[in-house]
Amino acid sequence: MAGGEPAGRGAISRRGALGGAVAGAAGIAATRVDPAGAKPPKGPGRKRSRDVVVVGAGLAGLAAARSIREAGRSVVVLEARDRVGGRTLNHPIGHREVVEIGGQWVGPGQTRVLEMIDDLGIETFDTYVEGKSVYYRNGSRSEYEGIIPPVAGPVLVEILTAINDMNAKAATVPVDAPWNAPEAEDWDGQTLKTYLDGLGLSAEARMVVELGITSVFAVEPRDVSMLFVLLYIAMAGADFNNLINTTGGAQERRIVGGSQLISLKLAKRLGNAVRLEQPVGLIRRTRTGVSVRTPSGTWPAKRAIVTVPPALMGGIDFKPPLPANRAQFDQRMPMGTVVKCMAFYDAPFWREAGLNGMTTSDQGPVRLTYDNSPPDGRPGVLLGFIEGQDARDLAGATDQERKAAVVECFARYFGSEAESRMTGYVEKSWAADPWSRGCYGGITPPGAITGYPGVIRRPFGRIHWAGTESATQWGGYMDGAIQSGQRAAAEVLAKL
Amino acid sequence: MAGGEPAGRGAISRRGALGGAVAGAAGIAATRVDPAGAKPPKGPGRKRSRDVVVVGAGLAGLAAARSIREAGRSVVVLEARDRVGGRTLNHPIGHREVVEIGGQWVGPGQTRVLEMIDDLGIETFDTYVEGKSVYYRNGSRSEYEGIIPPVAGPVLVEILTAINDMNAKAATVPVDAPWNAPEAEDWDGQTLKTYLDGLGLSAEARMVVELGITSVFAVEPRDVSMLFVLLYIAMAGADFNNLINTTGGAQERRIVGGSQLISLKLAKRLGNAVRLEQPVGLIRRTRTGVSVRTPSGTWPAKRAIVTVPPALMGGIDFKPPLPANRAQFDQRMPMGTVVKCMAFYDAPFWREAGLNGMTTSDQGPVRLTYDNSPPDGRPGVLLGFIEGQDARDLAGATDQERKAAVVECFARYFGSEAESRMTGYVEKSWAADPWSRGCYGGITPPGAITGYPGVIRRPFGRIHWAGTESATQWGGYMDGAIQSGQRAAAEVLAKL
Repeated sequence: MAGGEPAGRGAISRRGALGGAVAGAAGIAATRVDPAGAKPPKGPGRKRSRDVVVVGAGLAGLAAARSIREAGRSVVVLEARDRVGGRTLNHPIGHREVVEIGGQWVGPGQTRVLEMIDDLGIETFDTYVEGKSVYYRNGSRSEYEGIIPPVAGPVLVEILTAINDMNAKAATVPVDAPWNAPEAEDWDGQTLKTYLDGLGLSAEARMVVELGITSVFAVEPRDVSMLFVLLYIAMAGADFNNLINTTGGAQERRIVGGSQLISLKLAKRLGNAVRLEQPVGLIRRTRTGVSVRTPSGTWPAKRAIVTVPPALMGGIDFKPPLPANRAQFDQRMPMGTVVKCMAFYDAPFWREAGLNGMTTSDQGPVRLTYDNSPPDGRPGVLLGFIEGQDARDLAGATDQERKAAVVECFARYFGSEAESRMTGYVEKSWAADPWSRGCYGGITPPGAITGYPGVIRRPFGRIHWAGTESATQWGGYMDGAIQSGQRAAAEVLAKL
Repeated sequence: MAGGEPAGRGAISRRGALGGAVAGAAGIAATRVDPAGAKPPKGPGRKRSRDVVVVGAGLAGLAAARSIREAGRSVVVLEARDRVGGRTLNHPIGHREVVEIGGQWVGPGQTRVLEMIDDLGIETFDTYVEGKSVYYRNGSRSEYEGIIPPVAGPVLVEILTAINDMNAKAATVPVDAPWNAPEAEDWDGQTLKTYLDGLGLSAEARMVVELGITSVFAVEPRDVSMLFVLLYIAMAGADFNNLINTTGGAQERRIVGGSQLISLKLAKRLGNAVRLEQPVGLIRRTRTGVSVRTPSGTWPAKRAIVTVPPALMGGIDFKPPLPANRAQFDQRMPMGTVVKCMAFYDAPFWREAGLNGMTTSDQGPVRLTYDNSPPDGRPGVLLGFIEGQDARDLAGATDQERKAAVVECFARYFGSEAESRMTGYVEKSWAADPWSRGCYGGITPPGAITGYPGVIRRPFGRIHWAGTESATQWGGYMDGAIQSGQRAAAEVLAKL
């Protein structure tokens, strides 16, 4: 989830603008309850049986539950946290306004999340893009208007050529079977860094492209398989611009009331089918179905849908144990690293200066910023992302040190007012969150896609898999989470 | 653990011979007991406090416990399985003989395990290497004597050149800080496959080198960071031959009574300090130390040593939660994939034909074989490894199908007697084992070493880390497991 505005990415299409749209997916249920052979508690702990038990009340789990309920089947959703929404999370800032410290953006082509938003009577508004953007490189700050960032023509050509090449390659990757891409072996045998090394880009073009990659995946180019990057592009319509753009892309629109509202409304409709603070420790096969263990007891059902990201799957015991390939694949889809940071102001003062709040910078820890103010511009909110290695390097810093580093970046891009007028600050490190352990989503290093083909969506007996990591459209985004939940629900309904 | 005999690797030094020497390390304690807030049971469940609680009774944990006990401190070792030994495991074959279905070999330079063996009064014997080896390529079988495999001179030169290049690079990698290697960024930014692609080897040289890599790591060259491979070589004395050789290398000697005997004897000396079937679900910080939860209760101590491999760490809850970087590093060290397979015969009939039981083949699923008979040659035991992608491809096969495929390989290399005279068969898929989920050890894809420098051994409060994955000498081997345990014990003792 997350697109990104690499420097001047605006140039490439309408308007580059970052991602960080933390997917509202699973991030659920990694706690444990029970060792191997223990018996389920009797009495009050034993629950009535449902058709389906869903593990995780992020967008994937809630979308799945909704489909199951609509088909006239019974369902319960077990959520480890004390809230729904997974990697989407509203943060109240007073006066009934919220900001999102998780995934937030939606854009064209994300038909499932847009449809869901519509169904739930939720409204959207455009990400703020009026005015000039800031470009910061080699210690020098400049402003630019429109869609052409201030890179020299040849650099722009390099960037466009690289993106076009990735797009053309992505067009050959089947979204539901990337291991069958004609050059899958080659692409899954190398890192994106190796691919970029081969392009021989100038330093500036390389910086821009790498910033785009990091903004989409929250990892470094060395961390990710070239095939995974191409799959991701393919899942977003085979155009990298769709991932990184604001207008026309994945960061085009925001949600009135905050993106968590989707999950909150879905959960409200599901009523007491959604159970919070129910970390799943054990999923056991029974004679007639499955039995899911949480601290409050066992939840029997005919089938289960598990929306936990692969990286957190080890927190659940399965009896019988997961097949070797499933367990090993789950070892091979680590999460990205991002800290989402926002500073608050009485008003978005940068707008008065003709700035739209967007920055592309080669200097961290915050290299990408956005105007994240509520629809009416009160308060003013500057949003900055600390991504990939920047986030890891600051993981050991104190909250104060990290905040100071972020505000220093804001001041560098928007002047000393960014510091002097600041009225509040909030940040969220998703890698530190035990129920997500990273954002925006899972990525795969080389070897995982071709080494374990099909494993991510293959049901294990009566256990089915969802979560944005298992999507085939907009994987990693809120849209992918919903798609995965609906797909898993369809699988289950066909078997009930 | 595991060296490997790539085809004709024998040529390179005394005698190539495979690894598969599954490290007798942790593979422990990934089960879970208790959700977030639950209180420790009172009464009989509450245990008296020790100085140190060790999680895992593999070689790392037992070596740590021994050092702690010898220093006059109290210790308890909690083991999830119903046995000690971790990734070492004896399999009785009658007449007081055993074969090892886990790690088995030791060799020169592995001073810690050799010293431990000596201390415990255990004996070793030479791996059987008398006679000719089999080389199988492009459907054609040949035999060869001595240390020169039947590859053409130029191919041999290619192989030697590649190994020399890796050795020279490995010599620049600090074993305790590989992220500081002069070219760490470059090497950790690419897969080993990318490196090999750059060498432009002939098909035969490539096959031999790749077989060597797979035999050492049980993964494909695409799966592993070049820097990790160099670190591994560095930890084995900066000579790849040390990893892959029989005589003179990591597969030189075997252990009378089986490698698990080391753990069994260590455990016996520790007496009731070793507790089996105690999967650890929760490690909690307390005012004065730590408290470790298993099904039978809580185990308070001043400090903890956790020997679980990173890939299984998600099975343990930590309160407070692990730091972001530790949790994310643990997502980035997946386990190798190997099935260790042995067929039994009244006698090692291949010896009569002048064969030593070793094979190097380009055709799977078994590409490497060994004579794994007990010291007196009764019964005869053929050992074959299914490694990396071969193992994943066969993970969904039935036991019968896999056995048939293995025996077919044995017959291909040693004639129809390998099938007609077979009296028994045993195999162990370590990826299917819930307490190991792979062997020989953890590997890192690109980005993990440089992305999370130092994390693997950095204590978290009063929790210290061991396990062969955290070693700095012979990491991945039994020797590394012991080193890691002794190092963690020294850390703890310095703080008590």
